[in-house]
Amino acid sequence: MKIMGIDPGIAIVGYGVIDQVGNRLKPVNYGSIQTEAGLPTATRLKQIYDAATTLFSHFKPEVVAIEKLFFNRNVTTAFTVGQARGVIMLAAEEAGAAITEYTPLQVKMAVVGYGQAQKRQIQEMVKTLLKLPDIPKPDDVADALGVAICQAHSTTFTSLQTGKGRGGS
Amino acid sequence: MKIMGIDPGIAIVGYGVIDQVGNRLKPVNYGSIQTEAGLPTATRLKQIYDAATTLFSHFKPEVVAIEKLFFNRNVTTAFTVGQARGVIMLAAEEAGAAITEYTPLQVKMAVVGYGQAQKRQIQEMVKTLLKLPDIPKPDDVADALGVAICQAHSTTFTSLQTGKGRGGS
Repeated sequence: MKIMGIDPGIAIVGYGVIDQVGNRLKPVNYGSIQTEAGLPTATRLKQIYDAATTLFSHFKPEVVAIEKLFFNRNVTTAFTVGQARGVIMLAAEEAGAAITEYTPLQVKMAVVGYGQAQKRQIQEMVKTLLKLPDIPKPDDVADALGVAICQAHSTTFTSLQTGKGRGGS
Repeated sequence: MKIMGIDPGIAIVGYGVIDQVGNRLKPVNYGSIQTEAGLPTATRLKQIYDAATTLFSHFKPEVVAIEKLFFNRNVTTAFTVGQARGVIMLAAEEAGAAITEYTPLQVKMAVVGYGQAQKRQIQEMVKTLLKLPDIPKPDDVADALGVAICQAHSTTFTSLQTGKGRGGS
């Protein structure tokens, strides 16, 4: 099963595609969509939407897992990231993918095994689990791969419970 | 000049189209896009995007003015409204409209003349300025018309300053 993890943002959207075959996770592709700070918000949103549409069309993920943010940060940030997240969810919906959402805590639990894990520990574990030569940069890319792994583990867990695989919802 | 005001939300998006001819403001059309609470967020975002795209294509506004929210409310609300706002801005950008943003304070100042105005006062003033038979319902529609009026007044003001009209940006 092809899974794409997404770490949304207005300046940088991290993405990571993995292929889950049984218990094995294979990295397919990962990178980031980046937009320039000086551009109007609507232009940046269109760039993100167009790039996400291209990625979904190219990699055809069955599940798109998006990080669900809990902000301790300010409301303006939540609002801005929400806008970027909206156009990505739209592109995923149009691509016919199942869409799932995970909190950073869920990602930590799934990737490292405990909720107090530091960013660096998650990144190291992403590298190890996917047998990558290095930790992907920027952080948003490693985060996106973490979300994809979280989705994969969640699917495995559900399969064990129900005796059959499912795409999440 | 055709102006569409928008009051974004995930459950209700208010819109109001007005035509500004010199100092006169004529209501063209107003209403709301509504989505069901039980549906997945991505489905609701796609419904909003599709409906907004249809409205922009039908009314061809030169300027789309969107309410810019300051939240005293919680971050989750900001995040949810941000997602809806993102897909509306995307649709407006794709339609080639100029996109402007106004805070509730700016709308109050433009419509009623002072920033402490109550919601009801704005609604009455929207009704009076556009010679409507009643205050449009739900509130989101009256709010959207208020944003459109704010844009119209701002354009007039800019015209007076520069000696020529402009679409805002």
